[in-house]
Amino acid sequence: MAKIRVPGFQFAGVACGIKKSKKKDLALIFSDRPATAAAIFTTNRVKAAPVLVGMKRIRRGMVQAIVINSGNANACTGSKGVQDAEAMCRQVAFRLGVDPKLVFPSSTGLIGMPLPMSKVRGGIEKATALLSPQSFSQAAEAILTTDRFSKVSSTWCNIGGQRVVVVGMAKGAGMVAPRMATMLAYILTDAAVQSRCLQRLLSRAANETFNCITVDGDSSTNDTVLFLANGVAGNRVIALGSKEEQVLFEVAKKVMKDLALKLVKDGEGATKLVEIRVERSRSVADAKKIAYAVANSLLVKTAFFGADPNLGRIMAAIGYAGVRIEPSKIGVSFDRVHAVRNGIVLNANERKASRVLRRPSFKVCINLGQGKESASVWTSDLSYEYVRINSAYRT
Amino acid sequence: MAKIRVPGFQFAGVACGIKKSKKKDLALIFSDRPATAAAIFTTNRVKAAPVLVGMKRIRRGMVQAIVINSGNANACTGSKGVQDAEAMCRQVAFRLGVDPKLVFPSSTGLIGMPLPMSKVRGGIEKATALLSPQSFSQAAEAILTTDRFSKVSSTWCNIGGQRVVVVGMAKGAGMVAPRMATMLAYILTDAAVQSRCLQRLLSRAANETFNCITVDGDSSTNDTVLFLANGVAGNRVIALGSKEEQVLFEVAKKVMKDLALKLVKDGEGATKLVEIRVERSRSVADAKKIAYAVANSLLVKTAFFGADPNLGRIMAAIGYAGVRIEPSKIGVSFDRVHAVRNGIVLNANERKASRVLRRPSFKVCINLGQGKESASVWTSDLSYEYVRINSAYRT
Repeated sequence: MAKIRVPGFQFAGVACGIKKSKKKDLALIFSDRPATAAAIFTTNRVKAAPVLVGMKRIRRGMVQAIVINSGNANACTGSKGVQDAEAMCRQVAFRLGVDPKLVFPSSTGLIGMPLPMSKVRGGIEKATALLSPQSFSQAAEAILTTDRFSKVSSTWCNIGGQRVVVVGMAKGAGMVAPRMATMLAYILTDAAVQSRCLQRLLSRAANETFNCITVDGDSSTNDTVLFLANGVAGNRVIALGSKEEQVLFEVAKKVMKDLALKLVKDGEGATKLVEIRVERSRSVADAKKIAYAVANSLLVKTAFFGADPNLGRIMAAIGYAGVRIEPSKIGVSFDRVHAVRNGIVLNANERKASRVLRRPSFKVCINLGQGKESASVWTSDLSYEYVRINSAYRT
Repeated sequence: MAKIRVPGFQFAGVACGIKKSKKKDLALIFSDRPATAAAIFTTNRVKAAPVLVGMKRIRRGMVQAIVINSGNANACTGSKGVQDAEAMCRQVAFRLGVDPKLVFPSSTGLIGMPLPMSKVRGGIEKATALLSPQSFSQAAEAILTTDRFSKVSSTWCNIGGQRVVVVGMAKGAGMVAPRMATMLAYILTDAAVQSRCLQRLLSRAANETFNCITVDGDSSTNDTVLFLANGVAGNRVIALGSKEEQVLFEVAKKVMKDLALKLVKDGEGATKLVEIRVERSRSVADAKKIAYAVANSLLVKTAFFGADPNLGRIMAAIGYAGVRIEPSKIGVSFDRVHAVRNGIVLNANERKASRVLRRPSFKVCINLGQGKESASVWTSDLSYEYVRINSAYRT
């Protein structure tokens, strides 16, 4: 695979000893010029220190550097945690000669432990010295915790005759390993984009991608999706409501969906990627509620793991989702195999359904027979491995 | 242990072949005279046929017999299912010489399969012939599915100088085994109670007992709690708002709490019984929301299984419960060991905390530092065994 590059951005990923495994644990992303920035943060009321600092940064709408450490979430660490996150930014700013207010911090890893600042300082020194346009994959590796593989994605499009690149990296779906908590994603483009336009674009795309996945239903203290647009491509600045906004939205969504599905595939202990699609619902919100109830049901997820087409559990989850439904109108199918019609389980098709559930990836389609709206949520199965990973006391 | 008896009630529990295991699968509870009846049903919008019939029955406020089959939930079976539930009632009524409208049906087991009515008919015939005041435990056994043990409880009190007995039996917490869905409970007393008083008493007591437990957060299509009061004790009928209502409420709550905790202890794969107590909350509703978020978090439950005092996961669950909290005011303790103070994790106490988590039963106390209200929820841990039970395809 060719190296991922995006004009005007440099990267570094180094190991500085925060992780006992000696794996890479500090990443740096640097734009040659201040970039328009938009972000989405965890809705959790317990927010990690870097999230609190990041929320302040994003108000100005400009970011030039991102510093991310893995192995320690800097969460539940009180005011000391905020000071540490600020100190990380100051050091990066000093080394790169930029305003500290243009440096955005992220952390992921153990919750409730103070950041080992001398190690972090060593890492920042090393990383700033190694910055290179070619080191995207090193940075993508350094943000991982217990992920089994790096999640990266890249694409391009034409905007006003100008070639524009959109790339992304992400880590960890749900709250990942013992005390490792976070979904982080960084989307970068060389397009020039108006600040408000970038935020709307990110929110819309996240709504159809990162906000449609679940591994264990736990939302973390550190979740952050950051989108930077540095304008190096030289296109006319993309404005709110323009045709170009829609073009960039589509490619950004493509990158984000690619990353989101990779997050689910790498969900803890996941052996299957399952799309829960709800159709003919009265509203998109209703469809999403039902899709999430099914996607988060432990009983449904363990049945997926066992390739058991357990319609009773799916019907029960539809029933407790809190949406006004008409049980006798419901149809359910697995890929193309019909399993429920008019609310009644079709036992004759059970073997065929079970064969679908043995596939590494399949779609559960729920037809409510009510309205015209639909929505999808992507989930994983629940395996022994999930319990093993999450019950193992860290040593 | 002495046999459980309650004046004026007879019982039977037989095997009629609904379960392949040949275990008991049909229970009958019969009151010598029509009893005042109150009930609570699943809030799931997909309701099993016997629940639909039971809801109709309870409107009249009187029940004389309960017929329960296990091994088949008679859910997602369409109008045929309702006809079958009605037919069960009619047969019991005919054999016992009572009005079919006084017979209340329940089912628990596989969802989506038609009831094997010839077997059910054989079972009813056998059970009606075996009715006896001494067969409480046989009936309690016949309502089980994959429960590891019977859940029964019994107590008594004085009401106006009259000794009054309250007993109960229950099965299966959450949605129990593959396609086995249901929490069923039957509370019986020989006290005479006004109909509206009995319903209020049941609702209040369930709110503090059955509605405070969770195993996997999945609510079933068949959940039913039924309370019968046959008045054989001869006390003055207990009226709404009387002193006697409070006395009966306390003993009924005791029986129901005893059953509720047994349900959690016997939760699928459970190795621990954990009380999640939330204190100093602004409202009881807020306290319950937070307690449930913590009690249902897969990450918290797997950490309990591994005896990992993972405060990050608990803090994260508190944060996403949807309640306005002040993270810096939160305290968390395990039994008497303080683990979080002012929102900051006390790493020094980690070993002590881990020792608490190795106990078969312990309390997690979350102090929000906001108001004066509190609430408890009881939960189990999440083990390999849960995944094994629920992923195994029934053969």
